[in-house]
Amino acid sequence: MAVSGLPNQHRLTAHQVGADARQGRYGHRSGVLWFTGLSGAGKSTLAVGLERRLFDKGMRVFVLDGDNLRHGLNGDLGFSDADRQENIRRVTEVAAAFAEAGRLVITAFISPFRADRHAARKVIGEGFHEVHIAASLDVCEARDPKGLYARARAGEIKDFTGVSSPYEAPESPEIALDTGAENFESSLDRLEAYALKAFG
Amino acid sequence: MAVSGLPNQHRLTAHQVGADARQGRYGHRSGVLWFTGLSGAGKSTLAVGLERRLFDKGMRVFVLDGDNLRHGLNGDLGFSDADRQENIRRVTEVAAAFAEAGRLVITAFISPFRADRHAARKVIGEGFHEVHIAASLDVCEARDPKGLYARARAGEIKDFTGVSSPYEAPESPEIALDTGAENFESSLDRLEAYALKAFG
Repeated sequence: MAVSGLPNQHRLTAHQVGADARQGRYGHRSGVLWFTGLSGAGKSTLAVGLERRLFDKGMRVFVLDGDNLRHGLNGDLGFSDADRQENIRRVTEVAAAFAEAGRLVITAFISPFRADRHAARKVIGEGFHEVHIAASLDVCEARDPKGLYARARAGEIKDFTGVSSPYEAPESPEIALDTGAENFESSLDRLEAYALKAFG
Repeated sequence: MAVSGLPNQHRLTAHQVGADARQGRYGHRSGVLWFTGLSGAGKSTLAVGLERRLFDKGMRVFVLDGDNLRHGLNGDLGFSDADRQENIRRVTEVAAAFAEAGRLVITAFISPFRADRHAARKVIGEGFHEVHIAASLDVCEARDPKGLYARARAGEIKDFTGVSSPYEAPESPEIALDTGAENFESSLDRLEAYALKAFG
């Protein structure tokens, strides 16, 4: 039987389109803006607002958040410490794949544990930028946009970050925004300026 | 305490950049070319060859394969039936996210089970195209590019598709290529023509 076809290669699946070629095509660096903060701090709202602004500037940008990962990829995970860790591990790998594909990724997850964010920084490398969306618990609980704090206080939700599960704030994030003190547009302006400087 | 900042929105994290806007920007439709076939059939080699050709035509294309997912995102999974199913479930969700971000994704996984590929088609929707890389077991085993068949026959690898774990061939793939009968360049030509017609 003749064995036809495939050329010999040392590493059969070495990608032929490298990160450099992609970045040259897209005109900006790839990487990850890793938003971390309490529920209600404004991570997702700022993420999609920033995505819109950067998209309008021609950047290849995409938000990964609970809406597109928690229900699908991570739909098998709950909110125990172990499941949170696995959630963030998977988010890290998906974000790294998007960055490898030349994208600027904005991740918007509470990501409460320092060790998990540190691991994300290691996997993603120099394109990783930690963004602390740093509203206080009081502010977030007063907003309570999804009614989750009320349910956590009533004992209906277990392991709720800030109430019954810890939030370990970043010690030296690349940028921090206090959305309790600063209004939305101003926060967005600062994020946009930061992103353009870091990736533009 | 004043609660400042975030605008009220019904769905806090609704993406402001839709799939239509992305596709308008990138000039082609997004979706998934889902390669399936035995180890050694040529999935990864054809995938990166096709990626190169489509990238050179200006398309936003990215390969998801064992190299970038099996070791990272799916590094916790083995090759039992349940783990294979979970592997393909996660690949499906990541591919769907890339497609949502306007990309043409080429997935290159054995994906031996019909039910899992059917589930992928349901999640990804009309952008899903099943591509059977259909070399026979004899051809694949004679190639054995990574020496895996030899190890499987020697009993060193359990649950090896085609040897000790089933491969359920597609019943009606969008396109099928017999890489045992057709040479590499000719297979690539056909794939490129198919992809340009389906997504261009």
